[in-house]
Amino acid sequence: MTETLAEKLEKSNFGHWMARFEGFMVFIGVVGPFATLPQLMKLYFTHSQHASGQSLLSWSLYAVLSMLWFFYGLVVGKLPIYVGNGISMVLNILMVIGILIHAGITF
Amino acid sequence: MTETLAEKLEKSNFGHWMARFEGFMVFIGVVGPFATLPQLMKLYFTHSQHASGQSLLSWSLYAVLSMLWFFYGLVVGKLPIYVGNGISMVLNILMVIGILIHAGITF
Repeated sequence: MTETLAEKLEKSNFGHWMARFEGFMVFIGVVGPFATLPQLMKLYFTHSQHASGQSLLSWSLYAVLSMLWFFYGLVVGKLPIYVGNGISMVLNILMVIGILIHAGITF
Repeated sequence: MTETLAEKLEKSNFGHWMARFEGFMVFIGVVGPFATLPQLMKLYFTHSQHASGQSLLSWSLYAVLSMLWFFYGLVVGKLPIYVGNGISMVLNILMVIGILIHAGITF
């Protein structure tokens, strides 16, 4: 069975598109964690008086989860997994510390 | 080259351990997103007066990021990726809506 040019093009275009999408998601995996920076700025600098509205439980779980993914990424040797989650882990731990400083023990 | 029994055992134990760890991380990928529930409870029910301490920018970025991972998971056909991030997407969008309701436009 001979492939038509259209079929070949479609396949190659899809392959090309997938490679770009995969590359984009690697980028997203590494820069995405920095989305927490505005939240950290509010907690530490501009809206510390509202720290009790932050969930210590949620942020502690995020810290543990990112730690697990960081460890998993190291074990399977996937850089986008351990770099992205390593950054998340640090920022999530900073959120936990900030909540403890500005709101104390809460849920 | 013949493998020693120790080498065989080590490999098989590591393989067994890795399979369990992979399975555990699939579980974590699906239940982890629910870590946001305490934060949603604080925002909507118990600490709405502190909603302005939530970063609309951070939670909007989380919503977009989880949407990208959800879409990526569907494209590559990985259930733990699209189920986990599908749940995250819904909860992150609820955070964005809650911030808009209780704090309005903020950073």
